[in-house]
Amino acid sequence: MTQAPPAVADAAADVPAYCEDLVVRAQAAKQALAKVPGAQRDAALRAIARRIRASEASLREANAKDLEAGREAGLSPAMLDRLALTPARVESIAAALEQIAGQADPLGRVIDGRVLPNGIRLEKRRVAIGVVLIIFESRPNVTADAAALCLKAGNAAILRGGKEAAHSNRGLAACVRAGLVEEGLPEDAVQLVGTTDRAAVGELLAKTGRIDMAVPRGGKSLIEAVVAQARVPVVKHYDGNCHVYVDASADEEMALAICLNAKTHRTGVCNAAETVLFHADTAQSGLAKRVLEALIGAGVEVRGDARVCAEAPAAKPATEEDWSTEYLDLIVAARVVDDLDQAVEHINHYGSKHTDAIVTGRLDAGNAFVQGVDTANCMVNCSTRFSDGQEYGLGAEIGISTDKLHARGPMGAEDLTTYQWVLHGDGQVRG
Amino acid sequence: MTQAPPAVADAAADVPAYCEDLVVRAQAAKQALAKVPGAQRDAALRAIARRIRASEASLREANAKDLEAGREAGLSPAMLDRLALTPARVESIAAALEQIAGQADPLGRVIDGRVLPNGIRLEKRRVAIGVVLIIFESRPNVTADAAALCLKAGNAAILRGGKEAAHSNRGLAACVRAGLVEEGLPEDAVQLVGTTDRAAVGELLAKTGRIDMAVPRGGKSLIEAVVAQARVPVVKHYDGNCHVYVDASADEEMALAICLNAKTHRTGVCNAAETVLFHADTAQSGLAKRVLEALIGAGVEVRGDARVCAEAPAAKPATEEDWSTEYLDLIVAARVVDDLDQAVEHINHYGSKHTDAIVTGRLDAGNAFVQGVDTANCMVNCSTRFSDGQEYGLGAEIGISTDKLHARGPMGAEDLTTYQWVLHGDGQVRG
Repeated sequence: MTQAPPAVADAAADVPAYCEDLVVRAQAAKQALAKVPGAQRDAALRAIARRIRASEASLREANAKDLEAGREAGLSPAMLDRLALTPARVESIAAALEQIAGQADPLGRVIDGRVLPNGIRLEKRRVAIGVVLIIFESRPNVTADAAALCLKAGNAAILRGGKEAAHSNRGLAACVRAGLVEEGLPEDAVQLVGTTDRAAVGELLAKTGRIDMAVPRGGKSLIEAVVAQARVPVVKHYDGNCHVYVDASADEEMALAICLNAKTHRTGVCNAAETVLFHADTAQSGLAKRVLEALIGAGVEVRGDARVCAEAPAAKPATEEDWSTEYLDLIVAARVVDDLDQAVEHINHYGSKHTDAIVTGRLDAGNAFVQGVDTANCMVNCSTRFSDGQEYGLGAEIGISTDKLHARGPMGAEDLTTYQWVLHGDGQVRG
Repeated sequence: MTQAPPAVADAAADVPAYCEDLVVRAQAAKQALAKVPGAQRDAALRAIARRIRASEASLREANAKDLEAGREAGLSPAMLDRLALTPARVESIAAALEQIAGQADPLGRVIDGRVLPNGIRLEKRRVAIGVVLIIFESRPNVTADAAALCLKAGNAAILRGGKEAAHSNRGLAACVRAGLVEEGLPEDAVQLVGTTDRAAVGELLAKTGRIDMAVPRGGKSLIEAVVAQARVPVVKHYDGNCHVYVDASADEEMALAICLNAKTHRTGVCNAAETVLFHADTAQSGLAKRVLEALIGAGVEVRGDARVCAEAPAAKPATEEDWSTEYLDLIVAARVVDDLDQAVEHINHYGSKHTDAIVTGRLDAGNAFVQGVDTANCMVNCSTRFSDGQEYGLGAEIGISTDKLHARGPMGAEDLTTYQWVLHGDGQVRG
């Protein structure tokens, strides 16, 4: 997967000049993109998907190098899982591109409009943001997803991946750029930063007015580092300290299935559950005990409060820190709460406003939970694992925003647009 | 207008403790507001409007103190104009409150939703942001507008006005808080910061996760100071270096009316024009000359490029700095450009992405201008002065965002909301 040259030459020699070059190219690509109609952008997405499918063997070869280096570097199993490109994941990357291609063009959509009393026609139209910088860690699929979503929304993308996935990212970026050229789009509409020198990130994050938005995807420390340096606007994707609350009225089988799925289906992801809360009645009824035993039986280490430890002797006592921890592993914190209000308080205090679920048979409990919990994604009787752009029908996602401004929860192509107010008059002046 | 006590006691003695108290009160008010239905919020807005109308005399008395202090402090005429509360402006503040009360509730609106293939019902619902901090300078109407828009959107507001308008702001805030109490809403849903000590701003801007959004309204230096200090999310309202471009095909009377209105209708406001650009053909045809003479005749100082100075001998030569200057005064920069493309380039290079207008008789020129100019508000054949929340039907505005993220252009109540994804299932887990 080394047939394509890096985006621009000699990244290592002069990082500031290299970054300036990236931005100049991105700005030129953005201007060119503004004239590319939606059908042509979609054709490029499909061309990229074809190239990714056709390159499966070489992509997996490149990925094998990354995985080997990762194992040597002692990456955790969760990290290696994020890094791996299985045939199914290559196919799912290509399928996500095609799904995005099949969506309506987010650009040009009139999202509000009216004729003002003075006869001026007012329209609020979706337009591209401009140049978007995505900074990510080990998951190589982000290279394709981010490129596709930026492209769908008419933005020029600058992608800065982690060094763990360097070979995989180069392979995917080569497919992307070849697909762009195939359909007559500017190759520099997607640029992969050709150095893992951290100085490049600082350089790019200072380019106010020329990089319109930065999206860091990765662990909390990456995001904090980006926020600390950034002078361009950042949409943040902090950790997922997700909760499942098992209400008094929960159906037993449903509670078992949702708790197990939320915790064990895939542990290294942000929408996995990290804490289970049980209504006190479920301790009385034996439901809490059955859920805890099922988790332990599935290989999960339970760290519980005193009441949980009384139900499940195999549980370890939880510390204060456990309530705030995103384990990303087969570990769960567990607590018995007095009632729904205490569950809501716990989640609002310790949670990360990412994804939180209730299992309940009562409509009033579901509504109170939704109204009470300050979270981007609120699940009633389904797994936290559904909090995902593809599941929501957004066609992959640029990330799951834990911010409240601009975008919240899974961000799709539309969240990579802004809007413009356009007023058409026939000579009106203000009196 | 001193009947109401300040929001909390003894602001001067201990600024950090005072600010902490403000935020604790705002958080409590936010929780209480979450249970207040839209009709009750609207009733409070109407009660506030009644109290403002009833207090016109005392409000103007308070304002007179501010104006006198302002004149003594040597404020510019533009600044004094912003500060003044005329009877018409008091009425327009009250009317804006009632207009906001009459709008649909932005909360609870389902803005997207579908049934997913697995049967889960997905909804994207508008919810309040939480606690909003508004930092503003001399315009007292912001006290009422900001309070009203925050309240409409279910947010608790902390308002920090400039010392120039201290008496006026206290008077208006007293009306707001009395109106809240009258309708059974928490008084602390709107708090006016009771000190003009700048340390308070720094304290408040550091309260991440407890102040959800900060909106500075005022001059560029205020906004830059806020951005430099802020650790909470900021929506920026930078200056309005607005342009009017007179195209070759412009109607003469329309060009004259729009240029005059955009420049002279009210100079101390962000949507006033600061630069007029003329297509070269309008220099040939004499249109540029007539517009320039009309501006000069209206008392406007013209600072022009060589071609403008050739048309209007009374014009002074413009310096490079003039193209970037927001005069907020009876001064205008003027340039003759070769064509529409050069006008677009000029605006994208020197403009502030706020509001820019074209006067043209040609549809293709209008479309090319709208597509080419990267601006929040793009006017075709009408004055830049229409770029305003009330004109757009948003019912006053919290400001005019020059950001591209979250909100762009005039921000109304809806721009003070975020959304939450809510998923209702019946036991779905991810396979």
